[in-house]
Amino acid sequence: MKFKAKLIGISTGGTLIALLNRKDSEVMGINAMDRVKIIKGQRIETVVVDIDKRGYLKKGEIGIFEEVAESLKIKNKDAVKAVTARKPLSLDYIRKKLDGVKLNAKEIDQIVWDIVHNKLSDVELAYFVAACYTNVLTMEETIYLVKSMVKNGEMLKLNRYPIIDKHCIGGIPGNRTTPIIVAIVAAAGYTMPKTSSRSITSPAGTADTMEVFCNVSFPIKKMEKIIRKANACIVWGGALNLAPADDKIIKVEKPLEIDAESQLLASIMAKKYSVSSTHILIDIPIADDAKIKNRLEAEKLKKGFETIGKKLRKKIKVIVTDGTQPIGNGVGPLLEARDVLFILKRDTKRPMDLEKKCLMMVSEIFSMVGEKNGYEKAKKILESGKAYKKFMEIVRLQGGKEINPNKMKPAKLSYDIVSSKAGTIKDINNFIISRIARIAGAPSEKSAGIYIRRHIGEKVRRGDTLYTIYSKSKDKMEYAKSIAVSEKGFVIK
Amino acid sequence: MKFKAKLIGISTGGTLIALLNRKDSEVMGINAMDRVKIIKGQRIETVVVDIDKRGYLKKGEIGIFEEVAESLKIKNKDAVKAVTARKPLSLDYIRKKLDGVKLNAKEIDQIVWDIVHNKLSDVELAYFVAACYTNVLTMEETIYLVKSMVKNGEMLKLNRYPIIDKHCIGGIPGNRTTPIIVAIVAAAGYTMPKTSSRSITSPAGTADTMEVFCNVSFPIKKMEKIIRKANACIVWGGALNLAPADDKIIKVEKPLEIDAESQLLASIMAKKYSVSSTHILIDIPIADDAKIKNRLEAEKLKKGFETIGKKLRKKIKVIVTDGTQPIGNGVGPLLEARDVLFILKRDTKRPMDLEKKCLMMVSEIFSMVGEKNGYEKAKKILESGKAYKKFMEIVRLQGGKEINPNKMKPAKLSYDIVSSKAGTIKDINNFIISRIARIAGAPSEKSAGIYIRRHIGEKVRRGDTLYTIYSKSKDKMEYAKSIAVSEKGFVIK
Repeated sequence: MKFKAKLIGISTGGTLIALLNRKDSEVMGINAMDRVKIIKGQRIETVVVDIDKRGYLKKGEIGIFEEVAESLKIKNKDAVKAVTARKPLSLDYIRKKLDGVKLNAKEIDQIVWDIVHNKLSDVELAYFVAACYTNVLTMEETIYLVKSMVKNGEMLKLNRYPIIDKHCIGGIPGNRTTPIIVAIVAAAGYTMPKTSSRSITSPAGTADTMEVFCNVSFPIKKMEKIIRKANACIVWGGALNLAPADDKIIKVEKPLEIDAESQLLASIMAKKYSVSSTHILIDIPIADDAKIKNRLEAEKLKKGFETIGKKLRKKIKVIVTDGTQPIGNGVGPLLEARDVLFILKRDTKRPMDLEKKCLMMVSEIFSMVGEKNGYEKAKKILESGKAYKKFMEIVRLQGGKEINPNKMKPAKLSYDIVSSKAGTIKDINNFIISRIARIAGAPSEKSAGIYIRRHIGEKVRRGDTLYTIYSKSKDKMEYAKSIAVSEKGFVIK
Repeated sequence: MKFKAKLIGISTGGTLIALLNRKDSEVMGINAMDRVKIIKGQRIETVVVDIDKRGYLKKGEIGIFEEVAESLKIKNKDAVKAVTARKPLSLDYIRKKLDGVKLNAKEIDQIVWDIVHNKLSDVELAYFVAACYTNVLTMEETIYLVKSMVKNGEMLKLNRYPIIDKHCIGGIPGNRTTPIIVAIVAAAGYTMPKTSSRSITSPAGTADTMEVFCNVSFPIKKMEKIIRKANACIVWGGALNLAPADDKIIKVEKPLEIDAESQLLASIMAKKYSVSSTHILIDIPIADDAKIKNRLEAEKLKKGFETIGKKLRKKIKVIVTDGTQPIGNGVGPLLEARDVLFILKRDTKRPMDLEKKCLMMVSEIFSMVGEKNGYEKAKKILESGKAYKKFMEIVRLQGGKEINPNKMKPAKLSYDIVSSKAGTIKDINNFIISRIARIAGAPSEKSAGIYIRRHIGEKVRRGDTLYTIYSKSKDKMEYAKSIAVSEKGFVIK
């Protein structure tokens, strides 16, 4: 059938969708979520159909969302043809998995290809996620998924060995180890092409924190250049096209907070695989209020990483760490960035808990690549200023410049939360600290957040400051204060 | 936060969605599929957030889809407020079901309420469908679902007893028993408030066929008036608001053609329950190419209906019938409507297979309500012309008038498919017949379709016409012919 294009001007966020008038859809015998091939000159694209029930389109008009307009170079009022098309094969495979049947490499590859090329609607993708969640992916299927996700995306190839990487299963405020670890490891001469994420539900991701110093969004070619010069980079993974299927899967996992272990493994491993890492350190912090609640869960996940690492021929070391309280003092991009500089510049205000954790993790990395006395070596690199020098080299290559940490000022409005009694700090609630920091404005306000002044085990008197909230906005500060006053997040006994 | 509304002018097809600029969403700490409360004067609505990544919105603008605009009476450039809101409780319950936990009545009720009030995105609804499919609903959960679906919709209350209903598990072309059965049953003095569906994947639904005679879309009050006068009606269920959650569930089941038995039971029973039926006849035709493939499947489904009927205190009779070939001769709205009139008017051209099936089904209904010699009684009502008179009464009340079946002309273009050899007809493929009739234009072209001239068991010579294709469009006829020539759908040996 022939149609006149009507550009809708908004994006569907991925899926290729065209809108049909109800009458036209009836004539074509097509229902919502069926497929049509749209033909514009030499270009053809198969898209998902949605039906216009409110009279937005006249008969003979076809509504074109941004993604389809771009793909087929359609302009408003262009003449296009549309013919009915078969549903993608991958729908049969998703249905199969939902029915509990194991998928082979070819089937998973087809699904991933269709995801990456926007051939599946979000509803169809949700069925895939649900299928993998209820009929848990086998290790074999997980490996097919990793390989497909990597294959259907860009890859960073460096021709170096070893290539170091690290990953932390999140949930702990502060804990900004990455910039320090990358600086030490790269200063020692190792390659570390680090991609990091932005915050989704936390007060800051490593990418948000690095952005206080420099750019974090680069195309893969530029990323490669930076690494060739400095051995390392710290960039935002979201700006690259590494394992793009993963981002789309994560998007539909969100509403139900589905976190299948196999999906988690596949997601992390795909990102590491796509930058060609050979040695990967995984940190699993455990705590009641962290993502992983106890040693049992951690050990299970650890085993998963070790198995998949072996099958993918990657050297993986998994450490299980203490996640009962925030690590470092700053929570929020600028406050965390300042902690990083304090440590790298050996400032007396540096948080020792964060420094120790970084040194421990670097020593694990060193031991993976066969270096002896890793902890001492790491400490020496840090104390000698070589790590700071390396970090500044990376920052400069990423378009930033030197900053004096003592001149990094948190947001103007501040409020001290004080202890209402004397005693010893028994616990700090990660969830409440994160929530207050977010309400104060982190991460979108870089300078907002929390500065923690006391940690577990310390004795406090009545009236001692436990932490300070920083915010740019009076409203946000009021709201953050009201939460903190009713629930400090500190247990003192 | 304060926003200026930008009306998008298109409908999402249900879910209440607002679009936010990426910067604003970051400031609010909100991701795609999170919720915000939109406040316009005294009106408040919680909606799902989508993030505009292509610069359709300026900072401070909020994109409003039709459903939200209507609900909150928002006009373009109106000032509105938006604040972050909790996700609906039902997401926790859907997650629970996905984890294999049984849901209670309250939880199912909350899910259904959220579905009906457009509080769930299609992705979230798909998770519910997937959860009910992989972690099969228990009979108890199915009953909660039926009751919730009915409660969260309109109900027809008639204060009569008994109230008759029937349902056929589809898949057989032709087979247009409903108008004839309703006419006989109502002529016998029984009440039969029949709601029917339009075709989704078949060449015609009962509602499409009845529309050849009269209107089929009525509000529930008007439907009640028709029934009070004529004892019966034959209307399109889709125009009513009976168990509206069911329609939304069916929409997201479509892409994967998910047909969980518990969903099927719940869907059918909710529609019957919502018109207060007390005696329900269910027809399960079986054939390789029907929805139900064999006696085993049929018996399982039958048991399901019987159990749910008992629990809902409805009298249910399930018959398993032969579905190996189309029933009646006409396939497509007009051709089926003509068959109906031929039978009711005792025309010699009436299809005897369809007539016999109708009489058998009415006799089952009569026996359910305690009438003896049901078959003879039904036959007498049909032969006496009382059924025709009753049918015409219904047609007139629904705004139609008398038509002479011999003046009902199928589409102008016709093409005979002939046998290429002599022999006996061993099988007719329902799927191919349906497909050809649809390609010829049915149901959107009422007069398009197929007229079947030979049935299973008949002897044919080479060159005998097996069926005739009717179409209004040359293109469609060519396409239909090309399919029919390569695959007639008839097995002759």
